[in-house]
Amino acid sequence: MNKPPKTPRAPGRPTADATAQRELLLNTATDLFSSQGIQATSLRAIAERTGVTPALLNYYFGGKEGLVDAMVEERFLPLVMGAAEELRQAGDDPQELVAAFVRHMSHNVAAHPWISQLWVREILCEGGVLRERLMDRVAPLVPLLLAQKFAAAQARGALNPELDPRLLVVSLIGVTLLPYAAAPIWRGVFANPQIGNEALIAHTLALLKGGMEP
Amino acid sequence: MNKPPKTPRAPGRPTADATAQRELLLNTATDLFSSQGIQATSLRAIAERTGVTPALLNYYFGGKEGLVDAMVEERFLPLVMGAAEELRQAGDDPQELVAAFVRHMSHNVAAHPWISQLWVREILCEGGVLRERLMDRVAPLVPLLLAQKFAAAQARGALNPELDPRLLVVSLIGVTLLPYAAAPIWRGVFANPQIGNEALIAHTLALLKGGMEP
Repeated sequence: MNKPPKTPRAPGRPTADATAQRELLLNTATDLFSSQGIQATSLRAIAERTGVTPALLNYYFGGKEGLVDAMVEERFLPLVMGAAEELRQAGDDPQELVAAFVRHMSHNVAAHPWISQLWVREILCEGGVLRERLMDRVAPLVPLLLAQKFAAAQARGALNPELDPRLLVVSLIGVTLLPYAAAPIWRGVFANPQIGNEALIAHTLALLKGGMEP
Repeated sequence: MNKPPKTPRAPGRPTADATAQRELLLNTATDLFSSQGIQATSLRAIAERTGVTPALLNYYFGGKEGLVDAMVEERFLPLVMGAAEELRQAGDDPQELVAAFVRHMSHNVAAHPWISQLWVREILCEGGVLRERLMDRVAPLVPLLLAQKFAAAQARGALNPELDPRLLVVSLIGVTLLPYAAAPIWRGVFANPQIGNEALIAHTLALLKGGMEP
């Protein structure tokens, strides 16, 4: 079992080993939180999976609360901020915005399988630990920004007038995140079809493109 | 506290009171399973909420397993079979099929709020109690039937050729079920907009209609 580094960390300058160990613990915690739920995951389970003592988790994160905070700040929010930056660069055309969102989210969710299950378990489930914690911070970065841009596009005739700009954000999340969260289900139902990530993105964009046309 | 009826039930012919009591227990169980999860819901909690003794649940259902079975057979599957019947009547036109599916599902999910949370918690979450139990039985009734009809429509030029008929089923579920499961989230984000069920259905159908056009 590894122990905490014996020499105290210089403030603001952790050793490379300590940084790597902290990252490893945070990755393990994120995986377990996503696969079995935050409340159901003990510090002991994370420590055992990583091969360290639970004391090390307290040393780095100050406890479970601090560990969840670290996951939110260092794993979850950077993804949201990356998506927001992607949207900022995509400009105002609604089709460009949607293409940027779908591509960015799909690549992230495919690369980090914990995202979709954590979203289902801790945001979509009533009582999920992250729902309240994230809503105020994520809302202005992505959903409100998208809904504003969709409404503006609709006002200038660049978006199907039969859509609701706010519900379009909800639809977008439904067709982007759900296929990853539900992949084991639909792959089972359809006898494990050979559908890769790019094919999934192409399908989703084709559906949205036609649906959004004015 | 109520007790089980003292006279034994005649086989296949329960008294009206016993039937009503059993229905009440099943409704309470379904609500609690959906709001806090099947594993986290004890027979005691269901009994307390209904104002009866836990023994009554054993009397009617033979235990937790039997209660989950009863919920599946008497609450969940009838909804799926209703949807399948709706699809059968809708014929082969893909737009008609999708309209029938979206309207039927939306009305059901709006009328029975337990459906969307139970779907999220026990089917969409990895390790959900209903995922394996339902997949084989639901698959041929709705998703496989829809995918077949979409593929046939695509082959005769009646569906956008850029879509994948199987993924269209996944997209359809994403835009139909997710808005109900996530309603507290998006209503919070968008400052509780006055969007009713018919407006949600109209938005969803407008998006799908354009997206599916050949």
